[in-house]
Amino acid sequence: MKLITYRNRQLDTRLGAIVGNLVIDLAKLGEAHGLAIPGSMLAFIDASPAALKQCTAWIAEIGDAWPVGVATPLANVKVLAPIPRPRKNIFGIGLNYVEHVAESSRSLDTSADLPKQPVVFSKPPTTVIGDGDAIQHNSRLTNQLDWEAELAVVIGTTATRIDEKDAMSHVFGYCVLNDISARDCRRAGQWIFSKGQDTYAPMGPCIVTADEIADPHNLDIWLTVNGVEKQRSNTRYMLFKIPALIADISAGITLEPGDIIATGTPSGVGAGRTPQEWLKPGDVVELGVEGIGTLRNPVVAI
Amino acid sequence: MKLITYRNRQLDTRLGAIVGNLVIDLAKLGEAHGLAIPGSMLAFIDASPAALKQCTAWIAEIGDAWPVGVATPLANVKVLAPIPRPRKNIFGIGLNYVEHVAESSRSLDTSADLPKQPVVFSKPPTTVIGDGDAIQHNSRLTNQLDWEAELAVVIGTTATRIDEKDAMSHVFGYCVLNDISARDCRRAGQWIFSKGQDTYAPMGPCIVTADEIADPHNLDIWLTVNGVEKQRSNTRYMLFKIPALIADISAGITLEPGDIIATGTPSGVGAGRTPQEWLKPGDVVELGVEGIGTLRNPVVAI
Repeated sequence: MKLITYRNRQLDTRLGAIVGNLVIDLAKLGEAHGLAIPGSMLAFIDASPAALKQCTAWIAEIGDAWPVGVATPLANVKVLAPIPRPRKNIFGIGLNYVEHVAESSRSLDTSADLPKQPVVFSKPPTTVIGDGDAIQHNSRLTNQLDWEAELAVVIGTTATRIDEKDAMSHVFGYCVLNDISARDCRRAGQWIFSKGQDTYAPMGPCIVTADEIADPHNLDIWLTVNGVEKQRSNTRYMLFKIPALIADISAGITLEPGDIIATGTPSGVGAGRTPQEWLKPGDVVELGVEGIGTLRNPVVAI
Repeated sequence: MKLITYRNRQLDTRLGAIVGNLVIDLAKLGEAHGLAIPGSMLAFIDASPAALKQCTAWIAEIGDAWPVGVATPLANVKVLAPIPRPRKNIFGIGLNYVEHVAESSRSLDTSADLPKQPVVFSKPPTTVIGDGDAIQHNSRLTNQLDWEAELAVVIGTTATRIDEKDAMSHVFGYCVLNDISARDCRRAGQWIFSKGQDTYAPMGPCIVTADEIADPHNLDIWLTVNGVEKQRSNTRYMLFKIPALIADISAGITLEPGDIIATGTPSGVGAGRTPQEWLKPGDVVELGVEGIGTLRNPVVAI
């Protein structure tokens, strides 16, 4: 299922499933069946797999005979970030594609050696914006605003000290994430101010549930700036794969339903180009992951 | 006012004010006056300064004539972390006391130069534990578990791009925080796995509201392990003072009510000692800040 958080014409924030060019209001679909389905993405993840299974069954059997008020044309709603407010910081993984390790060592202060353990950093929940929302460019803080196309993993069930072999059972689904980074805001090696500023995590456009992604390690990933391709790769080139990331983080830090792991970016970031390229107000960044969708965000001066 | 989050004999989690050796249930105090006072610390901070002002006035005028069910002996409740679940990651400040910069440069991989900007890192909300709760020692991950006594600032009102001169008006209060760190879990300079593991942020025992702390930059701070003093300093030796920290972080990252900034630790951490000393199962760490209170946490093997 492709799940979105959206705002309808009454300005309510709702949870929906995309079916063709319609968005299905899952709480109202539940009401029509006399069952309570949570109205927010986080509550729905908490109530899954039962809630997901139930909604999938209803949608399969209903054909196109939607009860009144349940289906809305997708074009008539405003799609928000699928999890507008995560419960904790997003976990980012640095230097997780081989060619990006090489370009980073040439242009940033990182090592040319492949990391022996995942390089984990965090982005506060206040970084999240949705498809179409503006990425803030504050020229008083940065002149090196950069892009990073990433596949993000959404956790489904609490994970503490999980073995790699059991890790994938804790995955609820996947989305696209742009790990925006102000390269000149790194401090003594710490990346949170560089990667953690407001609007620095465009996320979405939907969460595709895990059952619909046959192999998350074989998905094309790409990014353009003003229509010009900057990144193109495939998630098969991840250094630490998703089970390793979940096992590694959960060894010390409990992962909870709705937590997000951004799995790292391939080569082609602005810092790694010759000459270097940076985002500036007026630019438009578009990125996508195969089977999930695309995100398109303008850069605006603040 | 000294505010706590506590569990009563009915196992409800409540918000209370400490008055002498009593804890005053603020929601019930509100009920007795026919007004709704929020029952959790975060909701109370959201509703302040109005809620704080109202409760302060009631407590001043009531003498010791507590309505039935409002006052409980402090000894009869379990004190929890004042904010058991922060809304976002805790912001930590590295290398913010001059002598700690020197000891860190000798024993860790940090620079001997004083930082020119605050070194900001993050601890997930899942790190928080309260007074008396156990700090986990996982010997499969670390043999270098360390302590860091810190004054923590609790934000009261949303702060985006705040000038230093206005910063203190965004402070709700203060608490004590132990920034537990697994020194051997740092990775490529990133500290989140080192400082972000479950139970690595003992916090409390209360939040002292800002009006009761005449000068947060003149408070003694100390820490003992098994009764032996390891750290003793004063918050006057902070390199970046609280207004500078709030201005700096809020320049890029919106601070929200209930957000926590741990302001850094003075010298005397285990990594900086000769020979180095590490926490092991069975140890007890106690720390305190003048005018706020003390935290005492055992270290246990997991």
